Amino acid sequence: MIETVSLVDQYCHGVLRTELGLATFEAQLGGTARAPAPAPGTTFFDTQTGFAVRRWCPPLLGLEPHCPPARYLARRRELGVLETGRRLLRSTGISTYLVDTGLPGDLTGPAEIAATGAAEAHEIVRLEPLAERVADVSGGAGTFLAGLAESVHVAADSAVAFSSVAGARAGLAVSPEPPGAGEVRGAAGRWLAGRRAGGPLTDPVLLRHLLWTAIGSGLPLQLHAGGGFDTYPPDGHADPGALTGFAAATAGLGTDLVLLNGYPHHRHAAHLTSVFPHVYADLGPVLARTGAGAASVLAEILELAPFGKLLFSSGARGLPELHVVGAQVFREALERVLGGWVGDGAWALRDAQRVAGMIAAGNAHRLYGLPDAS
Amino acid sequence: MIETVSLVDQYCHGVLRTELGLATFEAQLGGTARAPAPAPGTTFFDTQTGFAVRRWCPPLLGLEPHCPPARYLARRRELGVLETGRRLLRSTGISTYLVDTGLPGDLTGPAEIAATGAAEAHEIVRLEPLAERVADVSGGAGTFLAGLAESVHVAADSAVAFSSVAGARAGLAVSPEPPGAGEVRGAAGRWLAGRRAGGPLTDPVLLRHLLWTAIGSGLPLQLHAGGGFDTYPPDGHADPGALTGFAAATAGLGTDLVLLNGYPHHRHAAHLTSVFPHVYADLGPVLARTGAGAASVLAEILELAPFGKLLFSSGARGLPELHVVGAQVFREALERVLGGWVGDGAWALRDAQRVAGMIAAGNAHRLYGLPDAS
Amino acid sequence: MIETVSLVDQYCHGVLRTELGLATFEAQLGGTARAPAPAPGTTFFDTQTGFAVRRWCPPLLGLEPHCPPARYLARRRELGVLETGRRLLRSTGISTYLVDTGLPGDLTGPAEIAATGAAEAHEIVRLEPLAERVADVSGGAGTFLAGLAESVHVAADSAVAFSSVAGARAGLAVSPEPPGAGEVRGAAGRWLAGRRAGGPLTDPVLLRHLLWTAIGSGLPLQLHAGGGFDTYPPDGHADPGALTGFAAATAGLGTDLVLLNGYPHHRHAAHLTSVFPHVYADLGPVLARTGAGAASVLAEILELAPFGKLLFSSGARGLPELHVVGAQVFREALERVLGGWVGDGAWALRDAQRVAGMIAAGNAHRLYGLPDAS
Repeated sequence: MIETVSLVDQYCHGVLRTELGLATFEAQLGGTARAPAPAPGTTFFDTQTGFAVRRWCPPLLGLEPHCPPARYLARRRELGVLETGRRLLRSTGISTYLVDTGLPGDLTGPAEIAATGAAEAHEIVRLEPLAERVADVSGGAGTFLAGLAESVHVAADSAVAFSSVAGARAGLAVSPEPPGAGEVRGAAGRWLAGRRAGGPLTDPVLLRHLLWTAIGSGLPLQLHAGGGFDTYPPDGHADPGALTGFAAATAGLGTDLVLLNGYPHHRHAAHLTSVFPHVYADLGPVLARTGAGAASVLAEILELAPFGKLLFSSGARGLPELHVVGAQVFREALERVLGGWVGDGAWALRDAQRVAGMIAAGNAHRLYGLPDAS
Repeated sequence: MIETVSLVDQYCHGVLRTELGLATFEAQLGGTARAPAPAPGTTFFDTQTGFAVRRWCPPLLGLEPHCPPARYLARRRELGVLETGRRLLRSTGISTYLVDTGLPGDLTGPAEIAATGAAEAHEIVRLEPLAERVADVSGGAGTFLAGLAESVHVAADSAVAFSSVAGARAGLAVSPEPPGAGEVRGAAGRWLAGRRAGGPLTDPVLLRHLLWTAIGSGLPLQLHAGGGFDTYPPDGHADPGALTGFAAATAGLGTDLVLLNGYPHHRHAAHLTSVFPHVYADLGPVLARTGAGAASVLAEILELAPFGKLLFSSGARGLPELHVVGAQVFREALERVLGGWVGDGAWALRDAQRVAGMIAAGNAHRLYGLPDAS
Repeated sequence: MIETVSLVDQYCHGVLRTELGLATFEAQLGGTARAPAPAPGTTFFDTQTGFAVRRWCPPLLGLEPHCPPARYLARRRELGVLETGRRLLRSTGISTYLVDTGLPGDLTGPAEIAATGAAEAHEIVRLEPLAERVADVSGGAGTFLAGLAESVHVAADSAVAFSSVAGARAGLAVSPEPPGAGEVRGAAGRWLAGRRAGGPLTDPVLLRHLLWTAIGSGLPLQLHAGGGFDTYPPDGHADPGALTGFAAATAGLGTDLVLLNGYPHHRHAAHLTSVFPHVYADLGPVLARTGAGAASVLAEILELAPFGKLLFSSGARGLPELHVVGAQVFREALERVLGGWVGDGAWALRDAQRVAGMIAAGNAHRLYGLPDAS
């Protein structure tokens, strides 16, 4: 009843290029930097993500749903990583991928995802690795800061958005104002002096300076804002309500903010989208990671968020299975929630179909200025 | 199955007196002081509140449910603001309105709502505007504080409750103890010296003094305690758990507290009602603003709150459509949640009907000492 | 469809030995140290717990479900407290009770529960009362600290786990590192000097020292971590996210942590189990206290927690009725949630049955090293 002809995946990463064994595949399902392996006696297959992969993916490779993981992996190797990727990505109904290229590891980039998935793809530039690459080739604070400004400016020409993990590195309660020039120069000098090549940017002043540099570009800025996985704030407080001050300070400047990874604070993220015209919220991993429970989570996000402020994504990385799960779980949750409300008489069918199209693709087209595919 | 013959709307405001165009009407659906207009490319009609208005109100004016907003507004103007108000309010089943008169703007007062709605109405006095009016006519700290005490005392004679937005102005983590007399006098002197007529009360010491003055009156005290709309705390932390200290300090003094606007922290608000005998929770905007999703929210509030501690309200302001939505969404959510539990055998039908009556009206009758309408 | 042949109740207390009148029985349903009696005009029977007791227990004593409380109490007295306890506990399907013996009051211990319930029982030792008993017989800081180390060591030989209410006494944001020896000795000296026999341990340094002493034992450590009832943190902030630092500091040491009482932050607790291999979460009062609403709460916990990290408990204390409710509510919620997902095709039936067995008993058997009952 609620159809979404094509999807814009507004936040995802590339997939691994190599053939995968069972352990590597499993680690991609639930591993984090903190917990790369499951607890003794448990497996990451015994999660909503694991069950969702086993539900949706085996049929795409000619197997029964819910078949044992070892059987699925054997079939995956039989087909090869390229053919598997092609079959999986082309099943998703995703017509445009926005790809955050800022993760380490040998992942496919936008062009390769586009080719494999027979779709469009655009780049999202993650700010912190960009700054770290600039630092790798900078002599001192002055050249670093000039290089940073130049790099953000150049990236803004080709990227569709910037993303940031500043919240995960220095906490979500970002001081609302941009740091002063002297403060930034001092922080840059100290950081560069103590840094080895490749060292991560964790200085709060520089992280904040980076956010404000991106704000100046006018591109939408995606903020990892919640209890996600590898991007959990060090103090454990992941409530995006802490971003209220930053949102207030950036209102009316012409740059939109997109809150990523709100779970389990997705209602707070949704609430912020109702308070600030320039704040949007991503549905991605919030739904993809909760699998069979995703319809309830989607319904919660739809309680307060204006329907024009929500954006589908898969949040996938590493495995094309996760792009499949993101798309399928989203579609099914949308059908269940919106279809249910139509069945109750609470929503008109025409409105439900319109809202489904907005969340699936229309809002992203408007926000990122994407060419209309239809 | 679960019938609620009459409702006490324990927290609402009046309605606008003038004919409304589409933009003004839309702003009333979702606008806030921070975001009076929707984001470009979006509309406040595309929200749960907008869809709920389009569901319930057109039939009351002789139109199809879910008809386009422009059609509904045209019909509204055809009938006139008075006749529209009469038709809408008289459909709600609300027999008593408790009206917070502390909002600015040309809104109808309790007597006018009672006449339009063929119901009873009583006044809730908001503390901060009361203090600001006293300050407008006070020469210095001494006359201000004496005038304040007198005004609260007089208001307590005619009002059924006090309300406060102290949490939204100075954060929810209210220091539990009343400020000392010298501290209050000093704060009053400084505030009055720097104030122009009409200036808002934001001094934390005076806000706290005001709360304790109201506590002394014995009338129930309604606290805006959550993520609501225009009453969001400046630090973004809206968890009513922050009120734990204030609740502990006021326990046993004979004054009851009513937590308003708990969403998305409504479970925390419900939890506080289970911990403190003198703490109650309002259901109002929590349900009215979540529309088709309200049944899930109601079920969550009913997880931990003693059933004698919950109070229906519409939380409406500006549009009689919002009183309609508040009442209808509440009734439907109650039927769905309590009726479902009866169907499962979890609750007895007689108990469910009794609890419905308590939340709809009985608890408010007891708490506010209202004459029994039945 | 989803059967759980036997349950391990991984966290509960004993039951009262005396015949109970209506008021005493009612206080056990909802009373807390802060609110031993309900608000005027209300009763603790009008709660989810009260309704769940009235649903499940009367038939076990030969009465109709949902019969009036007075009738149930009369029948209870007619049978006597021993026969009532036998009938109730033996109906639960609980084959092993893990009993926290650290509550005051005349409650039955593990051996007596085992005999009454025809089951196995093991002891959980609560750390703070253990330390207080040591303090009662210690002359000074040196003997106290030596006695404490010895007592924890001895307890670890017979207990299956330690439990702690440090979060409720000093806040959840436990400083992650163990306190230094000098700091501990100083705190012990000050505390003992100002203490009367039986006085509670509330010193933050000693509470932290106690946690790290237990960590050294290798036994699982159960932490009261949420908005529970008598164990609510003094600042009202019960988000187990605050335990992130402690969890990070204890990772890889060989001691597992079990988060108790997560509600209403159960999603955060579940999230922590997905981030840290050594962190587990309890379902107990989270489900038992939410009664008819428990299925939704269980579904939320299952969104992100790996299925190997969740543990059934009743969290019961005082009344065997609460053990019954804990078990019945859990079973019904499991059937509804997992059965629903199987019905939707989201989960395979075989997987659902396997996960049910893990949460009901298997995970507890593995974590606590219990002999396999089957």
